[in-house]
Amino acid sequence: MFETIIVPRVSETDGAGHINNTTIPVWFEAGREEIFKLFTPDLSFQNWRMVIIHFDVDFIQQLYYGKKVTVKTWIKEIGNTSLKIDEEIHQDGKCCAKGSSIYVNFNFTTQKTERIPELIRMELVKHLYPMDDKYQPDQEPFGMA
Amino acid sequence: MFETIIVPRVSETDGAGHINNTTIPVWFEAGREEIFKLFTPDLSFQNWRMVIIHFDVDFIQQLYYGKKVTVKTWIKEIGNTSLKIDEEIHQDGKCCAKGSSIYVNFNFTTQKTERIPELIRMELVKHLYPMDDKYQPDQEPFGMA
Amino acid sequence: MFETIIVPRVSETDGAGHINNTTIPVWFEAGREEIFKLFTPDLSFQNWRMVIIHFDVDFIQQLYYGKKVTVKTWIKEIGNTSLKIDEEIHQDGKCCAKGSSIYVNFNFTTQKTERIPELIRMELVKHLYPMDDKYQPDQEPFGMA
Amino acid sequence: MFETIIVPRVSETDGAGHINNTTIPVWFEAGREEIFKLFTPDLSFQNWRMVIIHFDVDFIQQLYYGKKVTVKTWIKEIGNTSLKIDEEIHQDGKCCAKGSSIYVNFNFTTQKTERIPELIRMELVKHLYPMDDKYQPDQEPFGMA
Repeated sequence: MFETIIVPRVSETDGAGHINNTTIPVWFEAGREEIFKLFTPDLSFQNWRMVIIHFDVDFIQQLYYGKKVTVKTWIKEIGNTSLKIDEEIHQDGKCCAKGSSIYVNFNFTTQKTERIPELIRMELVKHLYPMDDKYQPDQEPFGMA
Repeated sequence: MFETIIVPRVSETDGAGHINNTTIPVWFEAGREEIFKLFTPDLSFQNWRMVIIHFDVDFIQQLYYGKKVTVKTWIKEIGNTSLKIDEEIHQDGKCCAKGSSIYVNFNFTTQKTERIPELIRMELVKHLYPMDDKYQPDQEPFGMA
Repeated sequence: MFETIIVPRVSETDGAGHINNTTIPVWFEAGREEIFKLFTPDLSFQNWRMVIIHFDVDFIQQLYYGKKVTVKTWIKEIGNTSLKIDEEIHQDGKCCAKGSSIYVNFNFTTQKTERIPELIRMELVKHLYPMDDKYQPDQEPFGMA
Repeated sequence: MFETIIVPRVSETDGAGHINNTTIPVWFEAGREEIFKLFTPDLSFQNWRMVIIHFDVDFIQQLYYGKKVTVKTWIKEIGNTSLKIDEEIHQDGKCCAKGSSIYVNFNFTTQKTERIPELIRMELVKHLYPMDDKYQPDQEPFGMA
């Protein structure tokens, strides 16, 4: 699991007095930085590989300005060319939002997806969701080529 | 269906050269304004009713700065207290992103969900997804109280 | 003058119930699209020229969600390599924010500023601030090389 | 001086490959949190006091994704009801952006500005810009009532 501490910003709230729902994907994306780094060690856009093809969010409790949040990020499933990530946002000891995202390992030069390299798989495996033995390296678990 | 024309902004792109994925929920939320107005005619936060509990997005094609996009917004299902909305973003004649969201009709004073009033239902029905006869007014179709 | 109509978004408000101050530069940048197009007709980042070196904003009245705003954009001064732009945001018939920005015409390949071409100057002059005869094409009015 | 460490986000970059200019006011606002807390100790919007009336930014060097930045925040001048704040953003040992902002101490109930209380002044003075003896508590230094 990766943990990222985030300090909510005034500009991330909305008129209803809480954190706006569109801020949550921004925080979740921030939580994935260590995974981006596995694919693009210098984090440069010239060498970028990770392309998102899906995300979903469940809003469980309102999040507020004024208290730090923790983003928890796990690898949920590793496919041939793709990767499923699960995330949670906690504030004040409560899980306030849950989400998942699916990325593909994309070669921008050839404009094609590529198999996730073994060295990266070995790192990803260390961050698999606990109690979860779904690691099936040569299958695409969510219906992808 | 509701249609909303949006002009992409430089600040909505990212270093990979396209519209950043976190912009899509912002555009989808913008597409729901006419629905927010049914629940809160003056669009004031004092009278706000619509609370989001879920959204998901599928990214189909990259979206770019420099060309207008159209957000298409349909009512997908109307429950007792909740509402499912389906949306698409089109650019250059292609559907580039699809998403759905679930809202509840929330009374901030009592902090409870309330049945969607009949007058609002009558309006919502006019914007149901085409070819879709799932309107079951007294059932909660997505497992909600 | 260029005029851009913008529909405020829920995600652009903050917990104080109005449009957040950090939204204003986003709207002002949106108002400059026609100027960007003069320098980069296809609006592609490969051919991008306009680099911002300064902006300032004066907040005059609160701006709210629920009512359209108009961004008014003028050319204030044209230097050798640089350009000063003045902007206002109006809502409900009142000027709610004023700002100015300074851009340079930048060649990303040579990493140097370049003189604004004559053909672009001829277009820019048409959008000079009214009652303003400060157009001094061969002088850098704000202390720039 | 207050120092705030910020990790740049992919969503804060733009198609030109660097941090978008509209992100800078967001980071500067994040740098002011300890000052907001002096005026509103619980950081709740019900008790909010600080209203921004001006900001300006000078862009000195490009800022990039992939390396932490430090926001440095000083009190520049303390007026009767208002406050001038100076800020810098550093990355890789270089000052990349400078800015200042002016806030008033606003009572949302009476809709009037109020004198900054003595206890808050005593705290603010501790964070005055170094080498700066402009503290004139009973004068409004930037032409405000």
